[in-house]
Amino acid sequence: MTASPRLTGFARSRFSPVLFDENHVMSQGDVDSLLDAARLAPSAGNSQPWSFIVGRRGDDVHQRLVCHLARSSASWAPSASLLVANMSQRFVEGSTFEYSEFAQYDLGQAVAHLTFQTHALGLAVHQFRAFDRDAIAVEFGVPPHWEVTTMAAIGSPVGAAETHVGSGTSRERRAANDVTWARVMDPDEGQ
Amino acid sequence: MTASPRLTGFARSRFSPVLFDENHVMSQGDVDSLLDAARLAPSAGNSQPWSFIVGRRGDDVHQRLVCHLARSSASWAPSASLLVANMSQRFVEGSTFEYSEFAQYDLGQAVAHLTFQTHALGLAVHQFRAFDRDAIAVEFGVPPHWEVTTMAAIGSPVGAAETHVGSGTSRERRAANDVTWARVMDPDEGQ
Repeated sequence: MTASPRLTGFARSRFSPVLFDENHVMSQGDVDSLLDAARLAPSAGNSQPWSFIVGRRGDDVHQRLVCHLARSSASWAPSASLLVANMSQRFVEGSTFEYSEFAQYDLGQAVAHLTFQTHALGLAVHQFRAFDRDAIAVEFGVPPHWEVTTMAAIGSPVGAAETHVGSGTSRERRAANDVTWARVMDPDEGQ
Repeated sequence: MTASPRLTGFARSRFSPVLFDENHVMSQGDVDSLLDAARLAPSAGNSQPWSFIVGRRGDDVHQRLVCHLARSSASWAPSASLLVANMSQRFVEGSTFEYSEFAQYDLGQAVAHLTFQTHALGLAVHQFRAFDRDAIAVEFGVPPHWEVTTMAAIGSPVGAAETHVGSGTSRERRAANDVTWARVMDPDEGQ
């Protein structure tokens, strides 16, 4: 892939690890900074449709999250220093009215902001869906107007990006002009 | 708001401008870098459910986007150097099958990654929904399995963050422990 020379190191080097250092411990202060980055993300009308279940490896919340991982994620995710279940508010409490048209979009943004902060700490994030959504909702008393949308494993990756191929999906991206629906290019303008 | 001392400057200082420098011009190379950051974002199964309509102030795409802004955004968004309509693939082409459960979540992530790159260039992003979604779809021939989900105005903000209050929504965030559904805190551990 050729990428813009102006692209940040974060965008160039980010990847989703499948092997984490089991000896790395994340401090409470580092966890605080990840949650701060998420809660400061923008959202439609400042609706902030997010909440987080946060387990550090070895604590009670972590153990209860690990119990509800699918087999595929149970093989690697527990070794991360931190597991986070990312929740979006889908409905207004006690109703079937959508809370925000952008609840999932904005949760995605918040987790991306958490990801930037993770990289600023020299760590990395792997998001996944291989968990029992209903079981986690029961385990943590999540009410029906909220959804446990995704999970994230966060920690210190072991080895180079190329060695983290365990998730089975390609890391290739569509070409730049294949993600541009409409754009005027000026052939006389340099980069 | 008290924020973690470990939080990046990006998370601390980011805001959504409502006044952009009308003389700032974004180079094609800078636009390329924003699109690169977006397309390198992670997505469920690498589904990459995103595409972008990209107009630089003064070009044909920009003019066609401006025609379909709502009155509220038409008062400030056209002054930005760049307008981007952010599209998510909602359905498999020619069917009513959902393309990805995470199409909007992942588009939100991609726009967040674009936002991070924008700040690396010393610029800023304001996302909004105040536009005619159907009219933009007609204008640019967007097929029914895609949705024009949000728009972003991108450019060089004029003045300090405190002066950008035109959007009428509060910038306050819920407190850290109010976005944490479950977490074990160790009172004996420092930050």
